[in-house]
Amino acid sequence: MDLSTISLGQYTFIQNAFSFGLAVMAAASLFLWLSRSNVAPAYRMAITISGLVTAIAAYHYLQIMLSWEAAFSVTNNSISETGYPFNQAYRYVDWLLTVPLLLIELILVMRLSRSETVSKGVWLGGAAALMIILGYPGEVAEDAGTRFTFWVLSMIPFIYIVYQLVVGLKGSIAKQPENVRGLINGAATLVVISWLFYPIVFLFPLIGFTGGGAITAVEVGYTIADIVAKAVFGILIFTIALRKSEAEGGAQA
Amino acid sequence: MDLSTISLGQYTFIQNAFSFGLAVMAAASLFLWLSRSNVAPAYRMAITISGLVTAIAAYHYLQIMLSWEAAFSVTNNSISETGYPFNQAYRYVDWLLTVPLLLIELILVMRLSRSETVSKGVWLGGAAALMIILGYPGEVAEDAGTRFTFWVLSMIPFIYIVYQLVVGLKGSIAKQPENVRGLINGAATLVVISWLFYPIVFLFPLIGFTGGGAITAVEVGYTIADIVAKAVFGILIFTIALRKSEAEGGAQA
Repeated sequence: MDLSTISLGQYTFIQNAFSFGLAVMAAASLFLWLSRSNVAPAYRMAITISGLVTAIAAYHYLQIMLSWEAAFSVTNNSISETGYPFNQAYRYVDWLLTVPLLLIELILVMRLSRSETVSKGVWLGGAAALMIILGYPGEVAEDAGTRFTFWVLSMIPFIYIVYQLVVGLKGSIAKQPENVRGLINGAATLVVISWLFYPIVFLFPLIGFTGGGAITAVEVGYTIADIVAKAVFGILIFTIALRKSEAEGGAQA
Repeated sequence: MDLSTISLGQYTFIQNAFSFGLAVMAAASLFLWLSRSNVAPAYRMAITISGLVTAIAAYHYLQIMLSWEAAFSVTNNSISETGYPFNQAYRYVDWLLTVPLLLIELILVMRLSRSETVSKGVWLGGAAALMIILGYPGEVAEDAGTRFTFWVLSMIPFIYIVYQLVVGLKGSIAKQPENVRGLINGAATLVVISWLFYPIVFLFPLIGFTGGGAITAVEVGYTIADIVAKAVFGILIFTIALRKSEAEGGAQA
C-alpha cells in the first residue's frame, strides 16, 4: 500500500471512518448485551456472541485507527509519512475471530438440534477460519502471483460457506417458525452480500487500482462491509431471537 | 476555522466545555442504564437506546477534546498552533449515529403499534441521517457557495423532521395516556428548539462571524445544544417511561 499518495483530506476522512466503525461496533455490543434479557434464555447465547463479535471489532478498529494515526505526521496542513507502517493485518486478526463467531450466531439463533448445531458450527466456523488464514499470506505478499494464488485458495472455503448459507441451510430454515423465516433468510443473504465486497477488494492491487483514491475506497468500503456484516447482522439476529421468544411465549419485552 | 485567533483563555474555556460535555454524557448513560430496571419491560429498549446516544456522544467528546489539545501547543503562557488540524468532523460522525437514534427513543417510548414504530423509525431516522450526510460537505467546504448549497439541501430533511414532530406525531400523542401527554409534547418541542441552534451556527462563517470569539461561541454552543438534545432529552424520555409504567401498574420504583 503506497501511503505517500494520501492527501490530508483523505487521511482525515479515513480516520473518521475508523472512528465511526469503532463507535458503531461498541454501541452495538452495549445494545446487544443490555437487551439480552429481553429474549428467552434459549437465545441468549446467540446474543452474547453477537455482542462479542462487535466488541472484538471495536477493539480492532481502535487498533487500526491508532496505527493509521501513527503512520502519518500532519503539520501546517501538510501531510507526510512517518515511516511507521500502517498495520493492515489487524483486519485479519479481527476476522479470524469474528467471522467464525458470526456464523455461529446464525446457527445458534436457529436453535437446531444439539448435534446439528455442533456439526454446522464446526464446519462453517472451521471453513471461515481457513478462509481468513489462506487470505493473509496473499495480503502481505509483495508480488501479484502470490496474492492471486492465495486469493484462489481462500475462495474455496468462501464458496463452500456461501453454498452452505444459500443451499445447505435451506432445509433447516424451512423448519423455522413462519414469523422469522423471512428474517433468517434475510440474515443469510446479508452475510453473502456483505461478504462479496472482501474478495473483490482483495483483487484491487492486481488490477492496478492503487493510490490515495483506491486506498480511501478500500478502507471506507471495508468499514461499511464490517458494519453491515457484524453490527447490522447482530441487530438482525437479536430481532430474530426476540420474535422467536415472543412466538414461544418466552419474551420478556 | 482560523485557529490562530484563539487566545489562551479561549483555548482553556473550550477545553473545559468539551470535558464538561464528556462528563455529562457519560453520567447520563450511567444513570439511564442503572435506572433501566425501574421502568416496565416495554419501555426498557427506549432507555437502553437513550443511554447509548449519550455514550456515543461521550466517546465523541473525548475524541473532540483530544483533537483540540493536539491542535495547540501551550508553553510559558503563550499559545500557538501545532499545525495538526482540529477535527470538527467528529461532530458529524457523532450526529450520524445519535440523531437517528434519539428520534427512535421518542418513537419507542410512545409504544405505538409495531408497524407504526417501524415506519416512523425508518422515515424519521432516515431523514435524520440524510440531514447529517448533506451537512458534511458544506462543513468541510472552503468556499461560501458550497457551504450555503449544502445548508439548503440539509434543511429539506430538517424541515421534514420538524414538521413530523410538530404536526405528524399529533395524532399519536393524542392517544397517549393523559399523565404523559404534556411530557411527550415537551420532548418533541425540546428536540425542535435545541435543533434550531445547529443550522444557525452553520451559517456563522457566511455572515463573517469568525475569529476566536466566534469559535468559542460555536464550540460552547454546540456543546450546550448537544447536552440538551441528548442528556436532558434522555432524562425526559426516562421520566415519560417511568410515568407510563406507573400508570400501567408495571413500575418498579
